[in-house]
Amino acid sequence: MREAPVGVFDSGVGGLTVLKALAAELPHEHFVYLGDTARLPYGTKSPETVARYALQAAEALSEYGVKCLVIACNTASSVGLPAIRAHIRGVPIIGVIEPGAEAACATSKSGHIAVIATEGTVRGGAYQEAILRLRGRARVIAQPTQLFVALAEEGLHQGPIADSIARHYLDPLFHASAGSRSSLDPSSTPDTLVLGCTHFPMLAGAIRAAIGPAIEIVDSAATTAKCVRETLERESLTRLGSPASDDPKAATRFLATDSVERFARIGSRFLERRIDPEEVELVDL
Amino acid sequence: MREAPVGVFDSGVGGLTVLKALAAELPHEHFVYLGDTARLPYGTKSPETVARYALQAAEALSEYGVKCLVIACNTASSVGLPAIRAHIRGVPIIGVIEPGAEAACATSKSGHIAVIATEGTVRGGAYQEAILRLRGRARVIAQPTQLFVALAEEGLHQGPIADSIARHYLDPLFHASAGSRSSLDPSSTPDTLVLGCTHFPMLAGAIRAAIGPAIEIVDSAATTAKCVRETLERESLTRLGSPASDDPKAATRFLATDSVERFARIGSRFLERRIDPEEVELVDL
Repeated sequence: MREAPVGVFDSGVGGLTVLKALAAELPHEHFVYLGDTARLPYGTKSPETVARYALQAAEALSEYGVKCLVIACNTASSVGLPAIRAHIRGVPIIGVIEPGAEAACATSKSGHIAVIATEGTVRGGAYQEAILRLRGRARVIAQPTQLFVALAEEGLHQGPIADSIARHYLDPLFHASAGSRSSLDPSSTPDTLVLGCTHFPMLAGAIRAAIGPAIEIVDSAATTAKCVRETLERESLTRLGSPASDDPKAATRFLATDSVERFARIGSRFLERRIDPEEVELVDL
Repeated sequence: MREAPVGVFDSGVGGLTVLKALAAELPHEHFVYLGDTARLPYGTKSPETVARYALQAAEALSEYGVKCLVIACNTASSVGLPAIRAHIRGVPIIGVIEPGAEAACATSKSGHIAVIATEGTVRGGAYQEAILRLRGRARVIAQPTQLFVALAEEGLHQGPIADSIARHYLDPLFHASAGSRSSLDPSSTPDTLVLGCTHFPMLAGAIRAAIGPAIEIVDSAATTAKCVRETLERESLTRLGSPASDDPKAATRFLATDSVERFARIGSRFLERRIDPEEVELVDL
C-alpha cells in the first residue's frame, strides 16, 4: 500500500496548484491526477450536481488503487466531501477547505478573515463554517470572485487587466471608505485573506497589489499538502526509499474527461512545468 | 402543428439574446427554451463532447412537440448541427452560424471579416468555412475572446474592466501598428466584426468603443430570428391569430439542467426582462 499513488481530484486544471504543492511536500510519492474537464466549472453548479460529479470522480480515482484521496477542488470539497467519505472507505480523504480554514485561524491576529472563492463555494458557506468551528469569535466575510478563474485560464493572471479586476473585487473588502466603517475599530478590516479556489494562487501578484503589503494571504494548497503528509505518516502510508524519480513525468499520471490538449496547454501554466498532451489520458466517468 | 412552440437550445443563458430577437421577430409564437446549465460552458469542450451534449438536448426539446428547433449556441451550432439534423427528422433545424455568416458577407464591403467567438467555435472553424462558402474571396480572421463570456455572466459587461478587456482582444485585429501591415492595402483591416457568441451582444458598448465607429458589427441573433421567420412562413408553420399573449411569461417556457436560481438571475439580464426562478423548470438530460 505504501507504493500506491496518491489520488488528486479537481474539476479541471486548478488543482494542479495543489498537485505542485503535494509534489514539493512529498517528493517520494507517485500521483494520479484527475481533472473533470468535461464538466467544469463546478463553481457555478448546484450543490447536488457538484456532489454527484465529485463522487463519480472519486470512485473513478479509487479504481486506480490510490492510498489516499485529495479533493483539490474547493467547490467539490465544500459540498461533496460528506458523500465521498460515506461511499469510499478504507483510504483517508482530504479536502482543501479544512486545511485552509486552519491556516487562516492560525494566521489571523484579529480574527477578522476574508475568503475569496467561486460562487458555489461562497454560497455553500463551507469556509465560513470551518473557520467558525475552529474559532468561534472569528468574523468571516466571503466574496465570490468568479472572473479570477477565467483570467487564470486565459493566461491573463498578471498585468493591468488582472490588476483592475482584483481591485474591483477586493477594494470593497479592504479599502472601503472610512465613512462606512468605524475608524476606531481595529478589526474593521480583515487582516487575513484566504484564497479559496485553486486558480487564485496564479493571481497572487495582482491580489497582493490590490490589498497592500499588510494583509496575510493564506493559500490552502501548501496547507493541504502538509495535511496530506501528516496523514500519510500517521497511517504509515508514506512511500519509502529515494525520491519517486528524477523525472517528474514518471511520478505523475494525468487523467482528464475532455479536451486533453487544452488540459496540457493551460495545465502547464498551473503546474509550472510543461505537460505534453501525450501525458494526459482521456477517461470517461 | 402551427400552434406548437419553437424550441430554442443553448448551453446556458447566452441563447436568451437569440430568444429575445425571436420574440421580437415572431410575436405570435410560443417558445420552449432549454439551457444546459449543468454542463456549460460548451466553448472550452471538445467537438465530440459538444456534439453529444447538443444532440441529447435537441432530443429532449423535440419531446416537447416543437415545430422548429433553433440551436442558439454558436459552439453547438458549429460542431453539433450535422448530428442533430441526422437524428431529428421532420422539423426544420436552424443554427446561428449560417445566418451570421450570411449577414457578414452581405455587410462587408471589402470582404475582410473578423469573427470573435469562444475557443471551441474558433477552433472548429465553422464561421470561417461558412463565410468562405458564401464569398470565396473573403479574408476571415477569427479570435477567441473567452473572457467576454465571464464578463457578461458577472454583469461586468460595461465599464472600465470591460473596456480594457475589449481593447486587449480587439486592438490586435483592428489597430495593429502600421509597421506590421501594408498601409497601402485598404483591406488590411477588417471592415466587419461578427459577434460569434450569444453572450457578446451584452458587450456591444465596450466592443464598439474598442473598434471605433467605422466597423460594422454583425450580431447573429437578429439574423437568425429572420431566418426562423422565413423558414416558418415557407413551411406554413407560423402561428395564426393575435400575438401569443400580452404576457410574455405565458408565451415562453424555460427549462434548465441545473442552477435554476442562477439561470433566472443572470438570464434576466440577457433577456432584458425579469425571469422568476419559479418560471424555470429543472430537467435532466
